[in-house]
Amino acid sequence: MATLQDLGVSAFINILGALVFLILFAVLRIQPINDRVYFPKLYLAGKRAAAHDSRSAFRRFVNLNLCTYVRFLSWVPGALRMTESELITHAGLDSAVYLRIYTLGLKIFVPITVAALLVLVPVNVSGGTLLNLRKEVVFSDIDKLSISNVSPGSNRFFIHLLMAYVFTFWTCFMLYKEYSNVAFMRLHFLASQKRCADQFTVIVRNIPHVSSHSTSETVDEFFRRNHPDHYLGQQAVYNANRYAKLVKQRERLQNWLDYYQLKYERHPDKRPTGRTGCLGFCGREVDQIDYYRARISELEKRMASERQKVLNDPKAVMPVSFVTFDSRWGAAVCAQTQQSKNPTQWLTDWAPEPRDVYWQNLAIPFFSLSVRRFLISVAVFALVFFYMIPITFVQSLANLEGLEKVAPFLRPVIEVKVVKSFLQGFLPGLALKLFLYILPTVLMIMSKAEGYVSLSSLERRTASKYYYFMLVNVFLGSIIAGTAFEQLHSFLHEPPTQIPRTIGVAIPMKATFFMTYIMVDGWAGIANEILRVKPLVIYHLKNMFIVKTERDREKAMDPGSIGLGENLPSLQLYFLLGLCYAVVTPILLPFIIIFFAFAFLVYRHQIINVYNQEYESAATFWPQVHSRIIASLLISHVTLFGLLGTKEAAYSTPLLIFLPMLTLWFHKYCKSRFEPAFRKYPLEEAMEKDNMERASEPNLNLKTYLANAYLHPIFHLFEEVDKEEKIEVRIDKAQQQQHQHHQQQQHSDSHVRSSSQYHEETHLRSTHETTYYREESHVRSSQYQEGIHVRSDTDSPSPPHFVYHYDTEH
Amino acid sequence: MATLQDLGVSAFINILGALVFLILFAVLRIQPINDRVYFPKLYLAGKRAAAHDSRSAFRRFVNLNLCTYVRFLSWVPGALRMTESELITHAGLDSAVYLRIYTLGLKIFVPITVAALLVLVPVNVSGGTLLNLRKEVVFSDIDKLSISNVSPGSNRFFIHLLMAYVFTFWTCFMLYKEYSNVAFMRLHFLASQKRCADQFTVIVRNIPHVSSHSTSETVDEFFRRNHPDHYLGQQAVYNANRYAKLVKQRERLQNWLDYYQLKYERHPDKRPTGRTGCLGFCGREVDQIDYYRARISELEKRMASERQKVLNDPKAVMPVSFVTFDSRWGAAVCAQTQQSKNPTQWLTDWAPEPRDVYWQNLAIPFFSLSVRRFLISVAVFALVFFYMIPITFVQSLANLEGLEKVAPFLRPVIEVKVVKSFLQGFLPGLALKLFLYILPTVLMIMSKAEGYVSLSSLERRTASKYYYFMLVNVFLGSIIAGTAFEQLHSFLHEPPTQIPRTIGVAIPMKATFFMTYIMVDGWAGIANEILRVKPLVIYHLKNMFIVKTERDREKAMDPGSIGLGENLPSLQLYFLLGLCYAVVTPILLPFIIIFFAFAFLVYRHQIINVYNQEYESAATFWPQVHSRIIASLLISHVTLFGLLGTKEAAYSTPLLIFLPMLTLWFHKYCKSRFEPAFRKYPLEEAMEKDNMERASEPNLNLKTYLANAYLHPIFHLFEEVDKEEKIEVRIDKAQQQQHQHHQQQQHSDSHVRSSSQYHEETHLRSTHETTYYREESHVRSSQYQEGIHVRSDTDSPSPPHFVYHYDTEH
Repeated sequence: MATLQDLGVSAFINILGALVFLILFAVLRIQPINDRVYFPKLYLAGKRAAAHDSRSAFRRFVNLNLCTYVRFLSWVPGALRMTESELITHAGLDSAVYLRIYTLGLKIFVPITVAALLVLVPVNVSGGTLLNLRKEVVFSDIDKLSISNVSPGSNRFFIHLLMAYVFTFWTCFMLYKEYSNVAFMRLHFLASQKRCADQFTVIVRNIPHVSSHSTSETVDEFFRRNHPDHYLGQQAVYNANRYAKLVKQRERLQNWLDYYQLKYERHPDKRPTGRTGCLGFCGREVDQIDYYRARISELEKRMASERQKVLNDPKAVMPVSFVTFDSRWGAAVCAQTQQSKNPTQWLTDWAPEPRDVYWQNLAIPFFSLSVRRFLISVAVFALVFFYMIPITFVQSLANLEGLEKVAPFLRPVIEVKVVKSFLQGFLPGLALKLFLYILPTVLMIMSKAEGYVSLSSLERRTASKYYYFMLVNVFLGSIIAGTAFEQLHSFLHEPPTQIPRTIGVAIPMKATFFMTYIMVDGWAGIANEILRVKPLVIYHLKNMFIVKTERDREKAMDPGSIGLGENLPSLQLYFLLGLCYAVVTPILLPFIIIFFAFAFLVYRHQIINVYNQEYESAATFWPQVHSRIIASLLISHVTLFGLLGTKEAAYSTPLLIFLPMLTLWFHKYCKSRFEPAFRKYPLEEAMEKDNMERASEPNLNLKTYLANAYLHPIFHLFEEVDKEEKIEVRIDKAQQQQHQHHQQQQHSDSHVRSSSQYHEETHLRSTHETTYYREESHVRSSQYQEGIHVRSDTDSPSPPHFVYHYDTEH
Repeated sequence: MATLQDLGVSAFINILGALVFLILFAVLRIQPINDRVYFPKLYLAGKRAAAHDSRSAFRRFVNLNLCTYVRFLSWVPGALRMTESELITHAGLDSAVYLRIYTLGLKIFVPITVAALLVLVPVNVSGGTLLNLRKEVVFSDIDKLSISNVSPGSNRFFIHLLMAYVFTFWTCFMLYKEYSNVAFMRLHFLASQKRCADQFTVIVRNIPHVSSHSTSETVDEFFRRNHPDHYLGQQAVYNANRYAKLVKQRERLQNWLDYYQLKYERHPDKRPTGRTGCLGFCGREVDQIDYYRARISELEKRMASERQKVLNDPKAVMPVSFVTFDSRWGAAVCAQTQQSKNPTQWLTDWAPEPRDVYWQNLAIPFFSLSVRRFLISVAVFALVFFYMIPITFVQSLANLEGLEKVAPFLRPVIEVKVVKSFLQGFLPGLALKLFLYILPTVLMIMSKAEGYVSLSSLERRTASKYYYFMLVNVFLGSIIAGTAFEQLHSFLHEPPTQIPRTIGVAIPMKATFFMTYIMVDGWAGIANEILRVKPLVIYHLKNMFIVKTERDREKAMDPGSIGLGENLPSLQLYFLLGLCYAVVTPILLPFIIIFFAFAFLVYRHQIINVYNQEYESAATFWPQVHSRIIASLLISHVTLFGLLGTKEAAYSTPLLIFLPMLTLWFHKYCKSRFEPAFRKYPLEEAMEKDNMERASEPNLNLKTYLANAYLHPIFHLFEEVDKEEKIEVRIDKAQQQQHQHHQQQQHSDSHVRSSSQYHEETHLRSTHETTYYREESHVRSSQYQEGIHVRSDTDSPSPPHFVYHYDTEH
């Protein structure tokens, strides 16, 4: 174990490292050349544009204003200046609530630290067991401050017990307040949100197949029958995976074309040429612009026919649909109720935001879902406990002999002594490093295989898998030496009361390890986060070699989202460490506080300037954060119980039993009190918003507003769908002409339909068919509107004249 | 351990006992005097009436027709003759589905028994370990047929493993089929059910208090705003506990009055007199008829003023309401959605049937509920594991010395030697017997304290508590000798892998014990059930001493309901025994089969002839039955795992690990597949029934139909509420006169209201107040209508002219 000096050295190194990172960041961020790495969010938000100013070429890359170099912490006030409500408008509620986790950490741990340092440290220091045992036991100065210093059987443990109660109550109190705050923020956010498509839309899965009916017809009929007063329309989901491939291909070609055209514009004297074969080295010489134009037009033909196929083939329509209602109330009702007698059919749920939908998973049937979730949970268990087995296997393969066998031509290099020893030290570690590096990706793939349909839920599922991995392999793995597999074995073969003892005894001894961990992973890691070494390097590399057009540059600077899947679990680990050590080794707490404060600043800066918001889930992840902190509390109780058990504190230990029970009860209470606010949409709220909207915009045509909101994004991508194609499609539908007058009629009476619902059965049948075809024609005329749909409420993006367009063409 | 001979003797005794019971039953049931004990259900259903025939007095009590004595099993065909659909009409779906548990038992265990006897018994017998060890180990002949007979490390265990898989798959298959059957039956039952109040009603709890508004006004306003198209009205819930007391008192006095009037009618020459003091021995002499008339009229005045108080005092209105809708669709929507932004307010759920409501629990607030459930779960845990502690304590008090101290006058009796030894043997056991006797009652009280609002859910909760008790104290307690507390201690201090081993090793040794248990509790117990010794004795005792009037006799013969709270857990125990022993000691299975077959016959007879149906929950208990059988499967896997572990079957044991995983997955799948059918009401179904009803009865006035369905039963009890009182109440409301025209108007337009909902806000405000007072006036004129409400749909029980009545009186 480390002494205070060792720890001091480690702290010095890490603080120095963090400082170096910060200074580097201060220098790099003010260089214009790095602008797109450090402020991509501002570019995306349109608050900063590409600089086409009059400065010299050199000054466009390097900042020569020396004053700006002095204030290396100048980003801090900038990060703090934005108020929370501005932050919500700027980066969404998810980001704002994510930052609240850090402040929650501060709110919980600052008072606990003060109390622990004032009460427990003096108690521990004056306990003085270890001082008497100096010769026998190796111990560190840190241990003098920890519970290890109190002699077994001492009555001082009552003070620790009392503090455990106080800390738990304080944590629960702060958790309660924060849960209620976040729930309020969420409701307020949803209430003040502008009109957006997901408020009116419900996702329906597992639509049964009715023979002689298309899926769309089935859906239409079902909802007209069961939600006659509020049903508005539906958006079928197409299996567009092949089409998406073509779109991607076209995009690449278009990019090359842009590149060559730009080149040609700059040097109009010389048309760019090249070879068509592999990597431009072989094949015949062609004019690049003509070549790519030809290939694009060829591809577009294929795309058109593919799109036709997707839209016309009934098999391409998946048994999933986005059903829209004429009011939030109708959507809320449909999302929260069971529709069909068969509970595995017509599964309704809130539609995620259009940009939050994970399209690939929409078509998974119910039974398959249930099998997938089972298999993945088995796989996660295996991954958590047995991940060392494949790595050991890979390590055994990836030794030098193996390498020589696979690549004999490397032998002369490998046999050089320096290289050999380096590789021997490096190779085995590489497999583990690589595994840990790709772990979040692997977990995300597993979550996708589970079949969740929104990006937000995928991230939440990834976060919870990653949490289990960290809990077992970082927390328990560090406390009880040995792999997770060995732990599992000993857990199975030891009495249940022995396990908390094993952990409890080891906990105070590992305090210095975790302090170092916090400094390396927490402090220096966060400083690395703000410096963005990896994106910086990658951006400049891309800029040098790959970027050809402005579109490429935008792609290269894409910062991605904040990555809840990785960040939530590591944050939760800090809560776990803090709560476990609060009573045992309070001196660890200041390290945690510094982490929370520093990380808060850094992430606030990053959220404002860097990360892009991919979706808005309105803080749906909070219940998970809450229950993980509760779990940390319970783990801390169990370890304390084990520790006191070994300390012969026979009087005080039994009193601890009520603490986990009360905590569990608190959790259950909070769950029933707040969780519905995150899972359901209260009708009161829905009705209020509906009424307000009806009062303010009585003539709103919701149908056109919602028309294409949930179209697969692939169909939005190109606006240049030519007219010929449209006509081509419509000729197939010529027999539908006779329904057109119904359509216009329906438009006018959609808001007064409710009272006469029971007398119109036949009329509705005929109109719904028309609606269905009308929606198909919309598909063909769509634009890329997602962003608009979510943010604005003034423009109705899909022009309503399309219906009449349709009329005139026939 | 018992040999086969011992077991044979035990079987002979128990079969003889069962036969004696059956013969006694055959004799007693055909005596007219016992008619009301053995056929109360038929009396209640009106299929049998009190015999006032011409037979002699003696023949009215004793059956002299000798032929009927011969056929002592003649009740069996009678029990089987009724088809399932007739049974459902006769005794409700609950009873019919309850009987299906027995047939499920037969369906599961008959094939398993055949397979086990054909495959496993030969394998075990030829295994022959125990034959070699004859001299060392004491073992029974039964063990030759069990897995104990297979030598350790044998490959024969693969056969056991295979059979474990086969049995599990077969059980799961039958469970799946049965779950789907029951779910279908439930949906079919609900679909074919006649119109009844609970289909249109939602129970709303935790109504917030709004100052300057009464609860009824708050409810009215809230639902008019949030369910404008479907809200019909509401029934406030009054805190009528004091009034109920008075009603009970009045009923007793009325009974005495009836008795004396009857006496007077028979002997018109002599008016009955008596003394008013204690038990009629002291006090002044009075004319009994006049005396009771006077007391009743006095009591009625107090009742009237109390009723006034309840109905007028806003504090007597509890924050709970039964809200009715104009369609099943509206009620289904309201029951399944979240209403308010605060998830702890406006909690909606399906209203239980009026007769299923447990009125006392309606007013418990949300926070208190959460505390209660926590405390009760702690109490149940304590009861299951530590129930021996208070009993030991009582036993230590209830020794002879203690008794002598408390009651010194008993000393001479106690000191007699015979009495003393009898008491010494008897007293300690008495406490335990008494405890086990009152246990279901205690558990029911605990369930009531948890705050569930329907009798059906109370019974389900009691059943699950009782199951835990049986599992720990009967199953585990018999296998591992020692109290539950000792078990708990050893479970905590042994490695988790040791526990299945301990149980696994003990399981085959306890086979003979459980066979005897099945014979005593199962066979003889069921025979006792059909004989109904206790109700028989109690009925005749009551008839001799207490019964004065026909009303008393009806009360005395009340058979109660079938008692799911006690019967489900013991049934589930038989499933557990059967599944655990299927692989281990297959010879136990025939005992289980006989139990299921016999119990099926007996309970079919009892349900047809004896038990009364207190409520109809439409088989809501089935998910519980299903998951308990799944739990039994899991327990059987764990014990088999432990057993094989001690048998050194290293190759076969690991293959067992997939069985519990697959079973768990199956459970999850079934849960998501079928459970919603038991918890929710699909909108498709609701809409279908609504439409059918609208088509068949377009002019139905639902409002009057539903008016008093959910009035506290206490207010239904007396029809003779006099007119004066009504007027008295109305004078208070004179200021409401001006609203009357609104009321009539509302009656006429309640079905066309939906379209113009947004323009009527002020109009609605005024009408709703009238409605509220109208409902109060209904209260005063109510009749005992529950039975009618549930069964019939033709008469509208509460005459609609009440409103106009009200008009004319002012």
